[in-house]
Amino acid sequence: MSGKRTSALQAVAVRLREIGTLRSVQATLSWDQETMMPPAAAEFRGEEMALLSTLIHSKATDPSLGDLVAAAGEQAEVREDESLQADLREIRRDYDNACKLPTELVSELALAGTRGLTAWKQAREESRFEIFQPHLDSLLELNRRKAACLNGDGGGEPYDALLDEFEPGMKSARVEALFAPLRRELVPLIEELAAAPDPPDAAMHTTPVPVDRQARYSREVAEAIGYDFSAGRLDVSTHPFTEGLAPGDTRITSRFQEAPFADGLGSTMHEAGHALYEQGLPKERFHGRPLSEAVSLGIHESQSRLWENQVGRSRSFWTWALPGASRTLGLKGLNLEQVYRAMNIVAPNLIRVESDEATYNLHIMLRFDLERAMLHGELATADLPGAWNERIRSDLGLTVPDDARGCLQDIHWSMGAIGYFPTYTLGNLYSAQIWEAVRRDLPDLDNRIGSGEFQPLLDWLREKIHRHGRRWPAEELGERVTGERLSHEPLMRYLRDKLRPVYRLSGS
Amino acid sequence: MSGKRTSALQAVAVRLREIGTLRSVQATLSWDQETMMPPAAAEFRGEEMALLSTLIHSKATDPSLGDLVAAAGEQAEVREDESLQADLREIRRDYDNACKLPTELVSELALAGTRGLTAWKQAREESRFEIFQPHLDSLLELNRRKAACLNGDGGGEPYDALLDEFEPGMKSARVEALFAPLRRELVPLIEELAAAPDPPDAAMHTTPVPVDRQARYSREVAEAIGYDFSAGRLDVSTHPFTEGLAPGDTRITSRFQEAPFADGLGSTMHEAGHALYEQGLPKERFHGRPLSEAVSLGIHESQSRLWENQVGRSRSFWTWALPGASRTLGLKGLNLEQVYRAMNIVAPNLIRVESDEATYNLHIMLRFDLERAMLHGELATADLPGAWNERIRSDLGLTVPDDARGCLQDIHWSMGAIGYFPTYTLGNLYSAQIWEAVRRDLPDLDNRIGSGEFQPLLDWLREKIHRHGRRWPAEELGERVTGERLSHEPLMRYLRDKLRPVYRLSGS
Repeated sequence: MSGKRTSALQAVAVRLREIGTLRSVQATLSWDQETMMPPAAAEFRGEEMALLSTLIHSKATDPSLGDLVAAAGEQAEVREDESLQADLREIRRDYDNACKLPTELVSELALAGTRGLTAWKQAREESRFEIFQPHLDSLLELNRRKAACLNGDGGGEPYDALLDEFEPGMKSARVEALFAPLRRELVPLIEELAAAPDPPDAAMHTTPVPVDRQARYSREVAEAIGYDFSAGRLDVSTHPFTEGLAPGDTRITSRFQEAPFADGLGSTMHEAGHALYEQGLPKERFHGRPLSEAVSLGIHESQSRLWENQVGRSRSFWTWALPGASRTLGLKGLNLEQVYRAMNIVAPNLIRVESDEATYNLHIMLRFDLERAMLHGELATADLPGAWNERIRSDLGLTVPDDARGCLQDIHWSMGAIGYFPTYTLGNLYSAQIWEAVRRDLPDLDNRIGSGEFQPLLDWLREKIHRHGRRWPAEELGERVTGERLSHEPLMRYLRDKLRPVYRLSGS
Repeated sequence: MSGKRTSALQAVAVRLREIGTLRSVQATLSWDQETMMPPAAAEFRGEEMALLSTLIHSKATDPSLGDLVAAAGEQAEVREDESLQADLREIRRDYDNACKLPTELVSELALAGTRGLTAWKQAREESRFEIFQPHLDSLLELNRRKAACLNGDGGGEPYDALLDEFEPGMKSARVEALFAPLRRELVPLIEELAAAPDPPDAAMHTTPVPVDRQARYSREVAEAIGYDFSAGRLDVSTHPFTEGLAPGDTRITSRFQEAPFADGLGSTMHEAGHALYEQGLPKERFHGRPLSEAVSLGIHESQSRLWENQVGRSRSFWTWALPGASRTLGLKGLNLEQVYRAMNIVAPNLIRVESDEATYNLHIMLRFDLERAMLHGELATADLPGAWNERIRSDLGLTVPDDARGCLQDIHWSMGAIGYFPTYTLGNLYSAQIWEAVRRDLPDLDNRIGSGEFQPLLDWLREKIHRHGRRWPAEELGERVTGERLSHEPLMRYLRDKLRPVYRLSGS
C-alpha cells in the first residue's frame, strides 16, 4: 500500500506496455506481409522482423525488469488480489522463459522464419519440396537449440519445450494420452459413416458461387455473430488467419473458391471465432500484460472451432442462415435438411483446412507425430514427403498427388512453428466440452441461434473465458468452465450424436 | 586503409541500417494507418508511432554514434571518395540536428501528429474546424519548440528551421525571392487565359467514368511509365500519397471519382512519379544512409510533377494514351486535340490537388504565408478559416462554401508538418527546369513518348537524379543537372509556351 510498493507494479506495467506495443508493431508487419506486401520487399521484411524480435527480447530480459517483477510480487495489493497474483505469476513465467533464450537465437529464428515463409510460398506454388527443405532443416536446428535453452539442465523432451510456448503446461505424454483414445473411437466412427447406405448428398458443394458474393455473405455472417468491423477488417489471403494486432485492431482473413462455397464461409466463421476471443480480451485496460492475453492456442482454437463447427454446422444456425445465404449467394432450391446434411459430410480430404470435423483430427495426429520425429532426429527432412504420403494413405486411404497438396500445404513449419499443430485438436476437444457446458447453462440456445440471436452465446463466452486472459492455466480454465477435466469424450459424444443421424444410422 | 579505420565506417553503416530499418517499420505503420487500419485502432497506433520515434531518436543521437561518425570522417577511403565524403557530411548533419531535439519533444510530436490526423479526418468529414483547432494549436506550439531547439542560440527565423527539414538548405527569404516574380508573371497569364475568346471545351471533365475502369487504367499507365508493381502496390486513399517503406517496397495510393476521370489519372501519375524516384534510389546498397535517400521534397515533387504535368498533359503523351484510354475507360468520340486542350484548362479551383498547373502555385503561396504567420504568432488559429477564405477570394475569385473545401482540405498540418507546402512550388520550378534540360539532351523525346516509350526519359532521370540520393544539396543537384540556378523563368516559359496556344492566343 506504500508509495514505493505501488510503484513497482506500475513500473512493471509500463515496461510490459512498451514490450506489448513493439509486439503490436511486429504483428502489424506480419499481417501486412501475408496480405499486402509486394514480393520484392520480402527479404528486407525479414530484417525488420529480426530487429524487432531483438529489441523486444532485450526489453523482455532486462535484469531491472526482473527486479521490478520480484518487488511487485511483494506488494500488499498483489497479495490481496487473486487476479494480480495470476498476472505476476505469468509475468514471471514469461520473464524466466525469455531469459533462457540468447538474443542471437531469437534474431536468427525471426530471420529464418521470414525466409522460410518466402521459400515455402515458392515451393508450394511450384510443388517442389526441395526449395523448402534446406529452410526446414535450419528451422528444426534452431528449434532444437531453442528447446535445449528452454529445458536447460533439467532435461525433458525437446518437443515439450516448444509445445509449452503454444500450449503452456501441456506435455507430449498428455497429448498422447488424449489423442490415443480419440483415435481409437474416431476411426471406427469414420468407417461406420463411410459404409452408411444413405449418406448426405454432396451436390451443394459442387455448385459454383461467385467469390464476390461469398465475400459479401461472409462479411454479413461475421458481423451477425458479433465481430466488430470498426475494430477489424476482413481480407483475402492464401492461408486464412486472425491477427490481434493491437487494442482495437483484430483483423481476419479468409479465402474463397467458387465451390464449395461452404469452405470460405467456414473459414470466415473460424477466423471470426478467433477474433471474437481477441476482441473480448481486456486489451484496452491491460495491454502487454498476461491478463489481456489469450491463455493458450488450444483455448483460442476452441473458440474458432465452436463458431465454425458447433454453431456453423448446426441445424439451428442454418434455420437462420438459409434465407440470407440463398439471397446473397444466389442459391436456389436448397432446403434446410439438405444443407444441414451436406454441411456434415465426413469424407477424407488431402487438405487439412478443408477437412470435416472428424477426419480433421487424423491430420493433426499425423503432423504431431512427424514434426516430433523430425525435431528429435528420428525422421530426416528428405524423408518427410514419403512419410507424409504413406501416412495419408494408411490413415485416410488417399494418394497424395504432389507435395503442394501434401507436406507443403501448411504454413506453420515455414515460420518455424514446431509444436503448434496439436493445439488444433486440443481446441476441438475444448470446443466440444465447452459446447456441452454452454448448452447446460443456456437451455434455449438452439432457438436463439435459430432466430439469429448470437449475443447470448457470445456473452457467455466473454464472461466465462474471454475476459479472464491468462488468469488460470488452460486446463484449469477448462475445468472451471465445464466442471470436467479435458478428455476425448465430449468430442466423441458430439460427433456420434450429430453424425449418425445425419447419416441416418440408428443407435449410439 | 587500416582495419581499425575501415571498421568505423562499417560500424556507422550498421548503426544507420538499424535506424533505417526502424524508419521502414514506422513507414509501414503510417501507410497502414492511411489505407487499412480500422478506426478503433487509431488511439493505440499513436502510441506505437510515438514509441518508435523515441527508439529511433535515441539510436540516432547515441553519443557513440557521434564518435564513430567523427572517426569515419578521418578514414583514408572516405577522404579519397567524393561520394563517401558526401555521405559522411549528410550523416553528420542528421546527427547534429537529431541531437538538438529532446526525446520527449520527438515523442510528443509523434503522438500529437497521430491524434491530429484522427481529429482532422473527423473535422474534415463534418466540416467543423473547431474539432481540429485545439490540435492545430498544440502542433504549432510543439513546432515552435522544435524550431527553437533546431535554431539554438544562433537565432534565425523559426519557420526556416522547419523548412530546412523538408528542403535542406532552403530559407524563407529565398522562397520569397522565387515566389514573388513567379506571382508577378503568373497572375497576368491567368487573367489573360480567363479572358481568351476561344477557351478549351471542358465537357470531357464532366463525362462520368466508372471508378473501377479508372483504377484499371491508372494501373496500366503507372506500369507503362515504369513503376514496378513487384516492388509496390496501388491502393485507394482519401489523400493520395507515396510511401517508400523499405528497399523493394514503394507503395502509392490514388483516388477516383466518376468525373473528372483526369483527376484520378493525374493523381496516379503524380504518385507514380514520386515512386519512380524512390524505386531509383540505391536503397538495396545504402539503406539507412543519405546516399540512398531523397535529397529534398522539392526535388521529390519535381519528379511527380514532371510525370503528372510535363508528360501527362502533353500532346505526345495523349498521342500514345488516347486509344488505350478510350478502350479501358469506355470513352467515345474524343479526338486528340480536344483531349489535349481539355487537359490544359486553367480555371481556379477551391481544391489544391484538383488545380491546374498555373493556379496551383497560388494555393501554395497562400499556405506558405498563412502557416508562417501562424507559426510566428501573427495569425491566431481561430482566425485561420477567415484568413483562408479571404485569400481564396482575392487570389482566385472564389467563395469557400465550407472549411472542408477550405482550410481543412490538406492533411499536412494535421500531422504537424509545417514548412512542407513551399516544396510543392519548388517542385514545379525544378520540374520545368529539368524538363528543359531533358529535352535538350533527348531531342527525340516527344516522338518516343508518342510511341509509349518512357524508358529513355526514366533512364535520364535515374542517371542524372535518382541514383545520387543526397550526394549534393538540392539546389546544387539542380544546377548540375540543368546548368542553371533555380528560378521562376523555366516554369513561366513552359506555361506560356503551352497554354497560350491551347487557348488560341498568339504571341509570347
